[in-house]
Amino acid sequence: MMLMNTDRLLSGMKRAGLDAVVASTPENVTYTSGFWAMSQWIRRGPQAYVLTPAADPSDAAVVTSTGQIDLAADAEVWVKDIRRFGKFTVDATPGAVLDAQIARTKQLLDEKDYGDPVAALAGAIKDRGLQAATIGVDEIGILPEYWDKLAELLPNAKLVRASSVFRYARAIKTPEEISRLRRSAQIADLSITAALDIAREGATEMDLARAFHCKTIEEGGLPVLGCFGVGSRGAMINVQASEAKIKKGEIIRFDVGGRYRHYRADIARNGVVGEPDPRAVRYHNAICVGMYRAIDMIKPGVRVSDVFDAAVETVRREGIPHYQRSHIGHGIGLDGYDAPNIAPSNSEVFEEGMVICVETPYYEMGFAGLQVEDTLAVTKDGVDSFMISHAKLRLI
Amino acid sequence: MMLMNTDRLLSGMKRAGLDAVVASTPENVTYTSGFWAMSQWIRRGPQAYVLTPAADPSDAAVVTSTGQIDLAADAEVWVKDIRRFGKFTVDATPGAVLDAQIARTKQLLDEKDYGDPVAALAGAIKDRGLQAATIGVDEIGILPEYWDKLAELLPNAKLVRASSVFRYARAIKTPEEISRLRRSAQIADLSITAALDIAREGATEMDLARAFHCKTIEEGGLPVLGCFGVGSRGAMINVQASEAKIKKGEIIRFDVGGRYRHYRADIARNGVVGEPDPRAVRYHNAICVGMYRAIDMIKPGVRVSDVFDAAVETVRREGIPHYQRSHIGHGIGLDGYDAPNIAPSNSEVFEEGMVICVETPYYEMGFAGLQVEDTLAVTKDGVDSFMISHAKLRLI
Repeated sequence: MMLMNTDRLLSGMKRAGLDAVVASTPENVTYTSGFWAMSQWIRRGPQAYVLTPAADPSDAAVVTSTGQIDLAADAEVWVKDIRRFGKFTVDATPGAVLDAQIARTKQLLDEKDYGDPVAALAGAIKDRGLQAATIGVDEIGILPEYWDKLAELLPNAKLVRASSVFRYARAIKTPEEISRLRRSAQIADLSITAALDIAREGATEMDLARAFHCKTIEEGGLPVLGCFGVGSRGAMINVQASEAKIKKGEIIRFDVGGRYRHYRADIARNGVVGEPDPRAVRYHNAICVGMYRAIDMIKPGVRVSDVFDAAVETVRREGIPHYQRSHIGHGIGLDGYDAPNIAPSNSEVFEEGMVICVETPYYEMGFAGLQVEDTLAVTKDGVDSFMISHAKLRLI
Repeated sequence: MMLMNTDRLLSGMKRAGLDAVVASTPENVTYTSGFWAMSQWIRRGPQAYVLTPAADPSDAAVVTSTGQIDLAADAEVWVKDIRRFGKFTVDATPGAVLDAQIARTKQLLDEKDYGDPVAALAGAIKDRGLQAATIGVDEIGILPEYWDKLAELLPNAKLVRASSVFRYARAIKTPEEISRLRRSAQIADLSITAALDIAREGATEMDLARAFHCKTIEEGGLPVLGCFGVGSRGAMINVQASEAKIKKGEIIRFDVGGRYRHYRADIARNGVVGEPDPRAVRYHNAICVGMYRAIDMIKPGVRVSDVFDAAVETVRREGIPHYQRSHIGHGIGLDGYDAPNIAPSNSEVFEEGMVICVETPYYEMGFAGLQVEDTLAVTKDGVDSFMISHAKLRLI
C-alpha cells in the first residue's frame, strides 16, 4: 500500500545534497506517509508535515493537528511516529473495546501535545540527530511564519527549498499509484460516457456536468476538474458548464477528471449530436491521429521533446496546418500536473513507471474546441493505456 | 455581484498601515476580483494575484497565467486591468462574431505577455506609482521564490505579510456572499435529507456519501467536506465513508458541506434507524439545546467568548456534565473557517454581516459521535438562520 517511491526520493535527496526532507503540501504529505490530512486538502493554511531522513527513510515522522488525529490513525498510514499539536477533546467510554483505528486514535491522543506544528517538527528532527543537517523543506505548504520559526528552533540546520525534490520523486509511480491512477482515469472515461448518454438537442452543459459528476461519485471518485463546452463555447480553454444548450452538429468538448483515493484523472473527449461540421470532423481526426502518434512513440529513453515535435507535426500534416501548442501532455499523480511536461524545451526522457496524460487540444474562437487526452503508464518497452474508450469523435 | 467588502478591506489596510494589498490564495483572488482562477483552486503552485490599492480600490489589477485567461474574461470579474503571463495558443476564425466572454478573451490574448507572474505584478504596482509603497502580500498563495523576486523587482517597496488583513475583511459578508452562503448551506441540508432517505439497516456509509454528494451536485453544488460515520465509527472526528453498515439503533453522524458558486457549507446532523440508545438521545438533546442557546444569544456586540461559555455550560447542564470543547463554531465564506473563531480566548464580538457556523459536537470513542451544526447570518438585532431542517435527532 506504500505510495512513495523511496528509491527515487532518496536519489532526489542525494542529487540535492539533503540529509532529510519535510513534506508540507497535501500531496507530498500523503505521498510520503499515506496520511490524508483532510483539513489541508480542503483549505489553505492548516499545517501537516512528514519528515523523511535520508539515512533511514523508514524512520519518518508525521506532524498533525490533533483535530486530524483520527486520519493519522488510519491503517493506510505507514509512518509510526505521529506527533500532534493543539487541543481537541475526544471522550472515551471506560473499558470499551475499540476497533483498530479508534484504539490507535486513543493511543495518539494520550501522547504529548507539542503545542504548535513547528515545535513538533523540530522535536522530530532533533530526535533523529538532524539538528545541524541540511534539510529540504517543501516550501509550498509550510506557512512562511512557520518556516521562520523552524529556522529559529534549528539555528545550526541549513533549510533548503525542496518542493522540486518531491516532484522529481513523484514522477516515477509505484504499483499502488499506477493502480489508483488507472481506476481514476477509467472513472473519468465512464463518466464521459454517462454524460454523452444524456446528450441530446436542448440538453445543457449543466446537464452534462451533473451526469458526469454523479457517475464519478457512483464509481467511488470525487469531482475535481470539469470543463464542459458546447459549440463555440468549447473554444474557451477552461469552459465552465452553463445553461447553454446543445445544438445539432455542434461539438461538445469534455476536459475532465476527478480524484480516486486521492489520485487525479485528466482526460478529454468530444461528442456531437447529429451531423458534425466537415471541418470539425477533419480537425478532430487530425488531433486524434496526432495524439495516437505521440502515444505510439512513448517508451523509456525517448525524449519528451521528440514526442512533442512528432505530435505537432502529425496534427499539422493530418489537417490543421497552423497547429501550435506549448505542450502536448504531462505527468499525473496526486497532483494533476506531475513531471514530465511534454514540451519542446524539455530535455527529459520518458522512464518506466511514469504515468502520462497525452493531449492535443485545439481551440478556435468563433468555431469550437476539440480535445483528445488519454492517460497511460510507461512500461518497460512501451505504454499501458488506462483508457476504456477510443478518442474518436462520438456521434450521437 | 461584488463579493468584496471594500470598506472593511480598506479599514484592514489602514489598521495595518498598507498602501495596497496583493491577494494570492484562490479564496482571496476570487474575493477581491470575482476571478475564479481554476488552476490554483485545484492545485498548489499556480500563481494568480489581485492588486488592490488603498487610494482607489476600484483601480485594481488581476495577474493570471494565459492558460486561465478565459476565466478572467468572465462577466463576473469586475476588475478591468488584467495582465497575463505565459504562452498558450488559441486560434480565432477570421471575421467570426464572438459572444461577450470569448470576445473579451480574444482582446486579452492580443495584449502583452509579461512572461512571469511577478513581472506582471510588479508592472501593475509601478503603473500605480506604488513602487516605494508599503504593500501587504497574502503570503499563503505566493510561492517563496516569487516573493523574493518581487522584492528584487521593487527594491524601494516594503513587503509585509498580509493574509490576516484579507481574513479580517472577509469576516463581514456582502449581500451577494450571504445569498450564496445561504444557498450553499441549504444544499447541504437538502443533501443530508437525501442521504437519510436511503438510510436503512445494512446500507453503508458509502451509500450515504454517494446519496449526499449526488444531491449536492443535482442542486448545483460540488462536494468538499464529507464526514459520514455510523455507530462507534462516528466518534472519529473526520470519519470517512467506508463499507461499514448501518445497524439498528446506531447513530449516523453527518459533518458535511460542499461549495456553491465558490462558497462553502459546513453543517451537521444525526439520524438513527430504529430505536436509539437512551444515552444517545439524552446527549443529543443536550448538544441541541446547547447549540440553540448559543444561537439565541448571538447578535451584534455580544462577545464570542460569552457565547462559547453559555453553549458549553448549557450542554453540561442538559445532560453531558463532562462536556469540553476548544471552540463551538466559526465564520464561513469562501474559506471553510473564516473569522471569528467562537473560542473562550477570543475577545472579538459578533458583528452584523458575519456568517457563522455554530456547532456542539460530542465524540466518545467506544460509543458514538453526535454533532449538530447550523449556519446563520448575524443581522442588525439577532440572526437569520440558513437552515431548512431542525437539528433534532432524525428517527428513521
